Parts: sequence; C-alpha cells; structure tokens
Amino acid sequence: MPTIVVEIMPKAELLDPQGKAVGGALARLGKSQFSSVRIGKRFEVVVDGTVDASTIAEIRELAEDMFSNSVIEDVVEITVDGVAVEAVSA
Amino acid sequence: MPTIVVEIMPKAELLDPQGKAVGGALARLGKSQFSSVRIGKRFEVVVDGTVDASTIAEIRELAEDMFSNSVIEDVVEITVDGVAVEAVSA
Repeated sequence: MPTIVVEIMPKAELLDPQGKAVGGALARLGKSQFSSVRIGKRFEVVVDGTVDASTIAEIRELAEDMFSNSVIEDVVEITVDGVAVEAVSA
Repeated sequence: MPTIVVEIMPKAELLDPQGKAVGGALARLGKSQFSSVRIGKRFEVVVDGTVDASTIAEIRELAEDMFSNSVIEDVVEITVDGVAVEAVSA
C-alpha cells in the first residue's frame, strides 16, 4: 500500500527550543562543525488503494490544517512512496 | 552551508500512540482511505564547511546515539542537501 510522508518543520523565523538544546549539547561535546539544529515532525500515512490527485489534495489540506500548526510550522515536503509531490513551502 | 536531514521513526513493531490518535481522528472525520499514521522526528543539522565521509560517519553515530533512542526508534534516512546518504534501517 502506498505511503505518504509529510514533513513539518518549525518556521525558520521562530525559535526552536528543542533544536537549540540539541545544538547546545553538540557544542558542549566539541562537535562545533554542526552549527544549528532544528527539530520537526515526520508523518507516515498509509493509504488504502491508489494515490490520485484528489488523495494528494486531501493530504495537502490535512497537512496544513491538522498535522501542522500553520502559525508556528511549515509543511516542508510531501512525498508519495519516496517521490516528492511538492515542496509546499520551504 | 550544507544541511543534513536525519529522519527518525518509532520502530514498526511498537505502538505509536500519537500516530494512533491522529489515525483515529482521521477515521472519525470519515477519511477512511488513510489506514495508518505513524509520527516520527526530522532533524535538520546545518554543517559549517563541507560534508565529507568523516562528517557523515559522525552524524550517523549522533543519529543512532543522541538523536534517536535505539530501543524504540529507528533512523530511517539520512540525507545531505536532499541526496540520500543511506537508508540506515527502514
């Protein structure tokens, strides 16, 4: 069955405290080549049947309205079985 | 500057309560074509300088030891500027 992957990241202009904490830990471990860490979410949705244009439209709507909080997050990628459907907003 | 993306998902054999909740909400909304949802994490790490084999070895180690909890999570993908380095364990 096809799997749709939706990737969501905190907006670039907002602080990401979780990512900052990991970035700080890396710096303390002496791994200074890694300058910035941001942490987002990855949704894997299994689809019954085939993925057509309406499925993609629906998943795009769900990604914007339900999976992400558009005030603080961006949907950065939607892929169907590894093929990028669209870079919604990077 | 190059960006490394590390994708982490809960292990397939474990329950993912957060994903189950979203899957249940989809079913209640009548979106029964989406049969299963699992939710993982996406790390974006910005690298100062170039990415060579040692950087990749280091990020792989960090992904296994620091970004993920190997008891309950798998590192499913590491990409450098959009190019898959390795499907670590799918």
